[in-house]
Amino acid sequence: MGNQENWLSQQQQLITERRSVRHFDERPLSLKEIDAILEAGRWAPSGLNNQPWRFVTVTKSDLKDKIATLTKYQRIIEQAPVIICVFIDNNTLYHREKDLQSVGAALQNMLLMAHSLELGAVWLGEILKNSKQVCKLLTLPSNYELMAVIATGHPDHNYEPKPKDRKPLTDLVLARR
Amino acid sequence: MGNQENWLSQQQQLITERRSVRHFDERPLSLKEIDAILEAGRWAPSGLNNQPWRFVTVTKSDLKDKIATLTKYQRIIEQAPVIICVFIDNNTLYHREKDLQSVGAALQNMLLMAHSLELGAVWLGEILKNSKQVCKLLTLPSNYELMAVIATGHPDHNYEPKPKDRKPLTDLVLARR
Repeated sequence: MGNQENWLSQQQQLITERRSVRHFDERPLSLKEIDAILEAGRWAPSGLNNQPWRFVTVTKSDLKDKIATLTKYQRIIEQAPVIICVFIDNNTLYHREKDLQSVGAALQNMLLMAHSLELGAVWLGEILKNSKQVCKLLTLPSNYELMAVIATGHPDHNYEPKPKDRKPLTDLVLARR
Repeated sequence: MGNQENWLSQQQQLITERRSVRHFDERPLSLKEIDAILEAGRWAPSGLNNQPWRFVTVTKSDLKDKIATLTKYQRIIEQAPVIICVFIDNNTLYHREKDLQSVGAALQNMLLMAHSLELGAVWLGEILKNSKQVCKLLTLPSNYELMAVIATGHPDHNYEPKPKDRKPLTDLVLARR
């Protein structure tokens, strides 16, 4: 029981202490670390087990810097040693809105895994305005649609992310019936 | 380092061993357990920190049984001691598709938290076809739109959920660049 309480509080910590990390040092990520993050995404739940997520990892600076120009968060992508571009395949969707939620579940698994590896990561969405250009740079066919980019790396501890406020449960729970 | 490896493997276990649990025993959940699950949802990330998720918990059998009739997964909702109905507030969305993904992230946090509490939980989406009737039964204004229902409780160990297959990473990773 003591162990269970300890384990629980570690879970709660993992979930509540995860932050968006936007500054990275120069160390690359190992393939093992990148794959641990992708593995976590792979295990997310999805309606009819449709697994709508697809991934492209980018570590090469020249390509990464080109993608970076497509968002106002250019510096973050340039600085991160790895970005993971997350797509859906519009040829294999079963229900767009449910598949989008599942992609969100996969992204959260990946962010939690990065945090548990003591890496930093941030979910970038603003770049979706240039989804087609990202596909073009990655030479992907047009059935792939960008859903998000995760930038990840070793956190630069000179920039500690400030905790973001959250609405209290009393604002979020509409009723208990 | 030994500790970190141990912690990591616990994380990987949490994420990879979580299953959809569809059979529950008769024990109710404590308010503390329900709130731990809601808290986990509250800490999900969202674009512009918009926090689009809203929750209604239902434990009263008469109301829960009425909601159950709105889905072919009626038995699951009837049997679960608690359901958490998850909504978005269409009056405060900032970007529907990004908000839907964030709701998916919140759902995943809640499922992971339930699993870490040794509870069972399942994400139900089929009931969305009757989103409006769910709102009506809960007397919610029309700006609230149902996104998912989580049914949760103590797992009935007579029904061990079978592990669902996942596509291998080689099918999911389109390219490494």
